[in-house]
Amino acid sequence: MTTALPNTDSDRDRGEIRALAFDAYGTLFDVHSVSSTCRRLFAEQADSIVRLWRQKQLEYTWLSSLMGRYRDFWWVTERGLRYALAAVGVAAKPEAVEEAMAAYLTLDAYPDVAEALASLGDRRLAILSNGSPRMLRAAVESAGLGDHFEHVISAETAQVFKPSPRFYRLGPETLGLDAPWQLGFVSSNAWDVAGAKAYGFWTCWVKRREAPAEALDLSPDLEVGNLRQLAYNLGSP
Amino acid sequence: MTTALPNTDSDRDRGEIRALAFDAYGTLFDVHSVSSTCRRLFAEQADSIVRLWRQKQLEYTWLSSLMGRYRDFWWVTERGLRYALAAVGVAAKPEAVEEAMAAYLTLDAYPDVAEALASLGDRRLAILSNGSPRMLRAAVESAGLGDHFEHVISAETAQVFKPSPRFYRLGPETLGLDAPWQLGFVSSNAWDVAGAKAYGFWTCWVKRREAPAEALDLSPDLEVGNLRQLAYNLGSP
Repeated sequence: MTTALPNTDSDRDRGEIRALAFDAYGTLFDVHSVSSTCRRLFAEQADSIVRLWRQKQLEYTWLSSLMGRYRDFWWVTERGLRYALAAVGVAAKPEAVEEAMAAYLTLDAYPDVAEALASLGDRRLAILSNGSPRMLRAAVESAGLGDHFEHVISAETAQVFKPSPRFYRLGPETLGLDAPWQLGFVSSNAWDVAGAKAYGFWTCWVKRREAPAEALDLSPDLEVGNLRQLAYNLGSP
Repeated sequence: MTTALPNTDSDRDRGEIRALAFDAYGTLFDVHSVSSTCRRLFAEQADSIVRLWRQKQLEYTWLSSLMGRYRDFWWVTERGLRYALAAVGVAAKPEAVEEAMAAYLTLDAYPDVAEALASLGDRRLAILSNGSPRMLRAAVESAGLGDHFEHVISAETAQVFKPSPRFYRLGPETLGLDAPWQLGFVSSNAWDVAGAKAYGFWTCWVKRREAPAEALDLSPDLEVGNLRQLAYNLGSP
């Protein structure tokens, strides 16, 4: 008689994904409205500001995590904006900074999201994001996605950002899963997919636009162009 | 009778810098030769490649450190180059990748370095760098700086990159200092200065070209345009 042991390779090979966790910004939520607010506020310098802002926002999550000096995603995002404004030489009024920041609270979901989440509705779904609880609540509400998620998990709980294992473990812990590979993690950010893969999740890279994969020997298990394709690939649980 | 206690604020205020540790790439070593090699190899795409290469080289130090998957700086640098080539759509031959990488082994020192190190010669001097021991040995030799440094300290020993405190502590540990603020840390990278300041070093930002400070509430103790200005500011020990 053979007894099935948990955590064996054959279990893993069967790919028993017990729950799906989604990255928020750029994966579920379209940050386009941040760009349009910046174009209104900063005119022809908006494109440089938006690009630098996003870059510094990410850098500051990595740097503050590595330094062991966690500050929440709102702080990091605001500091990224201040750096970007300084770098392009824009002396923005406090109200302009506030208005640009507020764009993060009223995001739309990408057009494929609601349909895909509905068709994945038999599965346990969560958000697993760097965002602060307040930012995530606002974005989920603004995009009308509140009904789909069992949990909205924020880096706030771990006091560290992606791609730290101390961040990713919030997923299985919160969802009560026994092993990382029981969680399917979905992100449009190649580096986030690499970090989740390193942690042991089953991973899906939502390649919403053409971008090279990270050269880190951590390939996603699935690559799709949008969330409808993910739903189609996974089928029913 | 008053007894001077170690680690008091007054000791710190007096700024008793017992040793100086220098960042390597961009601070002591001019990575210009990397650019000129790339221009020869990749013609009009060189500038984009060099910019992306540096960006990804740094990102991969941060990401691999945060994931807890240290690979040495040579690996990280080579992967950054591969990403950059893929991003701009250049299918480089293996020999071209090797040649571009080899540029990191034959760097020049900036013109102010030798004179400044000589005039700081009464102090204990070290290099404290992300570089692998092999890369640092080659660069120190190529630039003719070998005689100036008591220690060349590599991230290899800590198995983690800047700005982790586990990296920075290699400085005081190797030099046998009692407190972080007894080490003066010198870097041209604003984020590196911020990380060193967070760890507790006295810090000097060598602003070799115009760049905004990081918006991280961690200002350097001194800002100079080159190492001669540092030597002038510190005077004799």
